[in-house]
Amino acid sequence: MAQNIYDHPEFFEGYSQLVRSLHGLDGAPEWPAIRALLPDLAGKRVVDLGCGFGWFARFARTQGAAHVLGLDLSANMIARAKADTNDAGITYEIADLEQLVLSQTAFGFAYSSLALHYIVDFARLVRIVHNALMPGAHFVFTIEHPIYMASSHPGWSTDPDGRKIWTVNRYAIEGARVTDWLAKGVVKQHRMLGTTLNALIDAGFMLRHVQEWSPTAKQVADNPDLADELERPMMVLVKAER
Amino acid sequence: MAQNIYDHPEFFEGYSQLVRSLHGLDGAPEWPAIRALLPDLAGKRVVDLGCGFGWFARFARTQGAAHVLGLDLSANMIARAKADTNDAGITYEIADLEQLVLSQTAFGFAYSSLALHYIVDFARLVRIVHNALMPGAHFVFTIEHPIYMASSHPGWSTDPDGRKIWTVNRYAIEGARVTDWLAKGVVKQHRMLGTTLNALIDAGFMLRHVQEWSPTAKQVADNPDLADELERPMMVLVKAER
Repeated sequence: MAQNIYDHPEFFEGYSQLVRSLHGLDGAPEWPAIRALLPDLAGKRVVDLGCGFGWFARFARTQGAAHVLGLDLSANMIARAKADTNDAGITYEIADLEQLVLSQTAFGFAYSSLALHYIVDFARLVRIVHNALMPGAHFVFTIEHPIYMASSHPGWSTDPDGRKIWTVNRYAIEGARVTDWLAKGVVKQHRMLGTTLNALIDAGFMLRHVQEWSPTAKQVADNPDLADELERPMMVLVKAER
Repeated sequence: MAQNIYDHPEFFEGYSQLVRSLHGLDGAPEWPAIRALLPDLAGKRVVDLGCGFGWFARFARTQGAAHVLGLDLSANMIARAKADTNDAGITYEIADLEQLVLSQTAFGFAYSSLALHYIVDFARLVRIVHNALMPGAHFVFTIEHPIYMASSHPGWSTDPDGRKIWTVNRYAIEGARVTDWLAKGVVKQHRMLGTTLNALIDAGFMLRHVQEWSPTAKQVADNPDLADELERPMMVLVKAER
């Protein structure tokens, strides 16, 4: 079973206070870039892997999705998502993505936001998603960038000349990375970007777009803290097609 | 016109002394990984973008390639390649890849080793290559990894706890990077990995494999200096199909 950090009280409390938790999709600076990658959702059955509080599920319904299945390991998240939703077209379920089973060609779109870097057996999950999509259907997801998580101690440092640098090491050594984010001992799974992309290709997906997200000039002007995101990528956006 | 650093006497002299120049393909630790990506070359017309001393062109002929067109900006490299080759099935030509024109569907395979990070208009070149390949033909290339070249001052550093780290900054700021390698003022073109891959996708290629090269355990045991390549990737290997 996957680590269920989101049901750790300290983590859940911290997570609930993040801008992206309080303000939903518009609280995430990468959302405009994700939205630009989305296909037309009208009439489609959608699955959201790691649906959290259900922000995307509700958005998909505003875009005409026929039904959204929101899956999350966290009982706290699913309880909150259910409490925040009054829509018979959305089903929320507690599910361990490591053990996920989905019906064949049951979905017209698959989505995941910043959840897949917790998955140990990414290749298995990708095969499940591929099998669950109809031919021509898309899978759009975001995942933490390996540059962001590779290092034994990820973070900013300064080089001997005083320049701000991001620390990278252990890039080719894949596997667990333990960090303290909102709570101590959060376990993420470091994979090279190539490994992530090859898992999709090997499952039969065609890659349509790979975007190492960075803010626009306007976003940096409006929120100068985002300038750090020009120095090193925090996440990757991927669009793949069955 | 592209910067022609290879014809700078100091650079050419230094380059000629590299293990990969003296020992050819087997002098490059990434060669076994490249070779595993190659399609069957028998009977194919091959183009090599940045052919250098012609090592790959001659290898392709040993694999049964019908003809190899080796292109390089460097007159020194082409002169040496011609001097080292006695094979009517190989043609070497001086060519600026920024201005390259190739006949439509003239080739059954395209190859490039560590040359494309010098190219300013990568998207144009990729369209030219796509157009020059027959349907189903592959394009295999290696390129410097953006982690390797992004920084204002790429190199190793140590973090405050004494750990060896690779410096990354300016990752999302694409464009020229000036470094001193073999000669002063070598200009390379930094692109995010996503930008490189999207150029291929947008030109019509299907991505077949993306490999951020790292040495095998045996390679590190045989040559401990290669352990650094586990800490941060120096190059990417890409296999794409028209």
